[in-house]
Amino acid sequence: MRAILLLAHGSRDPAWKAPFERLRDKIVARAPAMPVENAYLEHTAPDVIEASRRLVTRGATAIEIVPLFLGPGGHVRSDLPRLADAIRSAHGSIEVTIATPIGEADSVIEAIADYCLERRG
Amino acid sequence: MRAILLLAHGSRDPAWKAPFERLRDKIVARAPAMPVENAYLEHTAPDVIEASRRLVTRGATAIEIVPLFLGPGGHVRSDLPRLADAIRSAHGSIEVTIATPIGEADSVIEAIADYCLERRG
Repeated sequence: MRAILLLAHGSRDPAWKAPFERLRDKIVARAPAMPVENAYLEHTAPDVIEASRRLVTRGATAIEIVPLFLGPGGHVRSDLPRLADAIRSAHGSIEVTIATPIGEADSVIEAIADYCLERRG
Repeated sequence: MRAILLLAHGSRDPAWKAPFERLRDKIVARAPAMPVENAYLEHTAPDVIEASRRLVTRGATAIEIVPLFLGPGGHVRSDLPRLADAIRSAHGSIEVTIATPIGEADSVIEAIADYCLERRG
């Protein structure tokens, strides 16, 4: 079974993660059978190892990491391949893939443009 | 004339800003008469003072700052009001407002959910 790991940066501020959890809830509401978990690089729990453990417990045999980053910085280019390897090491035969970050998804940038244009007043 | 200042975090990586510039281009394509500029908090030029100067030069009398942040951290809560004040001080009578960050826009989270669900394979 395919699963999604929603990866964001993390923050010392406990309120920071709310939009990412709302995103997970939206996905779960539309695809209730698919395991979906949030994970964070820093400060915020769970990390990718704990999140992937939860996905595997729910039957995941393939995990797609979706990087919730608009700008493609060092986190996306160097941390992500390393984290994917860490998940593979932790869970034997699992297939781990990394999606294109959301900042490169035209539909996402289009939705942000719509939001900005609504603000013209 | 109303103008939009697209505020993002910034990065030492010169490639990081590409999605934010693509966003600006999309908005300009759809509303060519409206002044729109990118601005960054750290590392990446221009900063908000330089970006707002460009907007005022193009005739802006009101600037809406759109925070391109998904998670509402310290940058959004404390830096933004301070930056809005700095723009007001730099440009006398200009009206400066701060939009709700994109992470709190339901349409944006919905577009990211769509993108994730397309990845189910």
